[in-house]
Amino acid sequence: MTESDFLAALRTLPLHAAARGLRDDVALLSPAGPLVLTTDTVVEGVHYVATDPAEDVAWKLVAVNLSDLAAKGAVPVGVMLNYPLGDDAWDRAFIEGLGEILTRFGCPLIGGDTFSLPAGSAHVLTLTAIGEDAPAPPRSGAQAGDSLWVAGMIGDAGAGLAIAQGAFGPTSLLAAYRRPVPLLAEGRLLAPIAHAMMDVSDGLLLDAARMAVASGLAVSIDLAAIPLSTDYCAYAGEDRAARLAAATAGDDYALLFAAPAGLQPPVPATRIGSFAAGSGISLHDGAGTVPLPARLGFEHTA
Amino acid sequence: MTESDFLAALRTLPLHAAARGLRDDVALLSPAGPLVLTTDTVVEGVHYVATDPAEDVAWKLVAVNLSDLAAKGAVPVGVMLNYPLGDDAWDRAFIEGLGEILTRFGCPLIGGDTFSLPAGSAHVLTLTAIGEDAPAPPRSGAQAGDSLWVAGMIGDAGAGLAIAQGAFGPTSLLAAYRRPVPLLAEGRLLAPIAHAMMDVSDGLLLDAARMAVASGLAVSIDLAAIPLSTDYCAYAGEDRAARLAAATAGDDYALLFAAPAGLQPPVPATRIGSFAAGSGISLHDGAGTVPLPARLGFEHTA
Repeated sequence: MTESDFLAALRTLPLHAAARGLRDDVALLSPAGPLVLTTDTVVEGVHYVATDPAEDVAWKLVAVNLSDLAAKGAVPVGVMLNYPLGDDAWDRAFIEGLGEILTRFGCPLIGGDTFSLPAGSAHVLTLTAIGEDAPAPPRSGAQAGDSLWVAGMIGDAGAGLAIAQGAFGPTSLLAAYRRPVPLLAEGRLLAPIAHAMMDVSDGLLLDAARMAVASGLAVSIDLAAIPLSTDYCAYAGEDRAARLAAATAGDDYALLFAAPAGLQPPVPATRIGSFAAGSGISLHDGAGTVPLPARLGFEHTA
Repeated sequence: MTESDFLAALRTLPLHAAARGLRDDVALLSPAGPLVLTTDTVVEGVHYVATDPAEDVAWKLVAVNLSDLAAKGAVPVGVMLNYPLGDDAWDRAFIEGLGEILTRFGCPLIGGDTFSLPAGSAHVLTLTAIGEDAPAPPRSGAQAGDSLWVAGMIGDAGAGLAIAQGAFGPTSLLAAYRRPVPLLAEGRLLAPIAHAMMDVSDGLLLDAARMAVASGLAVSIDLAAIPLSTDYCAYAGEDRAARLAAATAGDDYALLFAAPAGLQPPVPATRIGSFAAGSGISLHDGAGTVPLPARLGFEHTA
């Protein structure tokens, strides 16, 4: 699509008043209070599979950003989109999926940019999300003695990625990979009681280790406690290997949080470990200590 | 560079308190009033030449966004960066250039994201800039009878692009292409008196036509009045062809504004035309009507 066709199509989606109808070079926002800002870029062949439907790529691009807002207990204000114009059908399908998730979460478009890519380049899409009214528990706030909790399931999206790449498995897992649901309502309720919170995007073990490092503490995790869905267990089993696979796969968009021992969270959540003085991450299950896997999750390197 | 090395290097640059030391998943901003938000993506091989030094790519990425803030009369608050990790030396040079422009314009880093690209993909960099205290004249505010003015020179960057691609010419023009200077101080003074304002990024004629369309008016431009630098005239001449080349080249980052007839702008600027009832763009010079060139500037298509 051309830039003007694309903008015309975007104007049929929910627009924030700040967007000035997408007819100016900037957006003009009048915030009611402090804002939470987050931005994520997704890349074809890195964050999604080239064959993923464009509707789902749009959904996921928004979802991964709203998940960061959820982890701060924020109410979404709106999003800005940086979009590479390309194939007409792909662009139209993308806008369809974008409209679905913006409508679902009441989150309008504020602005953005369109551009062209040289032939043969991977698609690169960026979204910036703005939220408000956020208690914004930091990554670094866990205290010694705190329990480590997770809200949401672990491993479904990792299995879904394998299914997207050709493995045979339940469509619910594929949906978890392609259409993750940001836990905005859960985040709103958890943020006021969490000492630390973040979303699980790069693998439970890696993200828990990051929270421990940021908080200057050691974290101990009960591998047997990690919440697995019925479909995941049917697909991958629930032995140690299946649990390690789930705990090191990415794209869960569950909420990981530290809360005082003894406190029962206000939403369904699973206690999977605890923080103590020291450093590092350790794993155990009913059978004893579990050696750390070589890779705790996904890290972006050169 | 790895993500953590890159973040460590970014932490040596000016950081906004909202960035939480780049150690959280979000930035937390407490705005003093309405905000101006703008975002631009630059692509290797599209918006810059692969051989452009990384320091200059960083400078330009920030400059093009700050230029949008300038056109609204905003004071920069900070920027968010979406960066593709790659070659170590390129990444280090990029951070060097980023630090230079952020320091020059007192504009700290607020947050961002890093990611990897598949081998062979063009580099794609996104920046989002936030400004405040902006009169924010729209693109659409020109009135019949208004004069059309430009602050800054036209055509230098277009000639600089040819020089970057191998043509022989003055380094000042190359610098105009690689290190455009956002006219923030000029924008602050112009925004309160301008009926409409935008920066010239895609070509003077195209951007003037866009202002006319947005304002529902016709615009008439005196090609002979378009401000050309001494170096541009030495390089390209100043005949009709040289003026048309300047007026349809991109990357000027001059400020284009509509102001009431008779009003003298508070900064050096050149009156190049006027708005009237009707639609369309027309060109003239001392010799009479000038036929419109086939292409008014750069438009991003598929």
